[in-house]
Amino acid sequence: MILKTDSPQNSGHKAKFVNNYLLYLLAAASEKASGQFHAKVRKAGLRVPEWRVVACLYDSDKMMITELAKLSLMEQSRMTRIIAQMVKRGIVKRANDGTDRRRVWVQLTPDGMALAQTLVADAKAHERALLSELADTDAARIKIMLQAVLKRLDER
Amino acid sequence: MILKTDSPQNSGHKAKFVNNYLLYLLAAASEKASGQFHAKVRKAGLRVPEWRVVACLYDSDKMMITELAKLSLMEQSRMTRIIAQMVKRGIVKRANDGTDRRRVWVQLTPDGMALAQTLVADAKAHERALLSELADTDAARIKIMLQAVLKRLDER
Repeated sequence: MILKTDSPQNSGHKAKFVNNYLLYLLAAASEKASGQFHAKVRKAGLRVPEWRVVACLYDSDKMMITELAKLSLMEQSRMTRIIAQMVKRGIVKRANDGTDRRRVWVQLTPDGMALAQTLVADAKAHERALLSELADTDAARIKIMLQAVLKRLDER
Repeated sequence: MILKTDSPQNSGHKAKFVNNYLLYLLAAASEKASGQFHAKVRKAGLRVPEWRVVACLYDSDKMMITELAKLSLMEQSRMTRIIAQMVKRGIVKRANDGTDRRRVWVQLTPDGMALAQTLVADAKAHERALLSELADTDAARIKIMLQAVLKRLDER
């Protein structure tokens, strides 16, 4: 057992490991930032998983449920139920593939696209406000770094 | 309604907004990275919230439940229940404040500290592997950037 000679004698926010631990910083930044934005999402009448679908479909004309599930960090069975709900509410529609009838695509309806455009604009404004704490070069770099970390994670 | 003239005609991973959206990158990196490490945590016999407590106490001699809850991104009532379980299992102990008897502190037991040291070493090795994708200067910088984003979030 290694002796800890440098541990602070009093509390306060002296958790030096945690406050400098990548996974903690990612989880804390993600939870707090998403918590803020998700209030706007709910105000627009969407649940968080529905917002993820809308955001994914925003710049793809159509996607398959498997792709939506992967990108939205969700199980496929859960995604299938979410899509069924969203079809009922007129936010998305299903479309068959012209060549392969087993493939079912999901697309935004015009109403869904209008909602997507409003929320994506809100999301971008929220992101700009968050990144305004960083220098311009860093604001661009943090995303590149996170993408590199994700690439590393996907390789494992 | 803004016309989207640049949307790709086919799917695939062309979700340009999502893949370049800070909150998505944070959530995806956090979920995937934590998912990997949490397998180790469970193997060591701890549940994820317990690991958070152990990690927080690792470099603080003692902390209050309110502090632990805040740092572990949890409700205080839930933290109180988790601490009660951990006391039973001999991982942490409660200690009263010498001057103010209403203040209850939580400390690691020697067994809890041994567990903390093993898992913190594992966490640091896992973090090094993840950051090995980045250049040395970027690996240091990503944490500083995340800390800046967190500071911004806490100010709101």
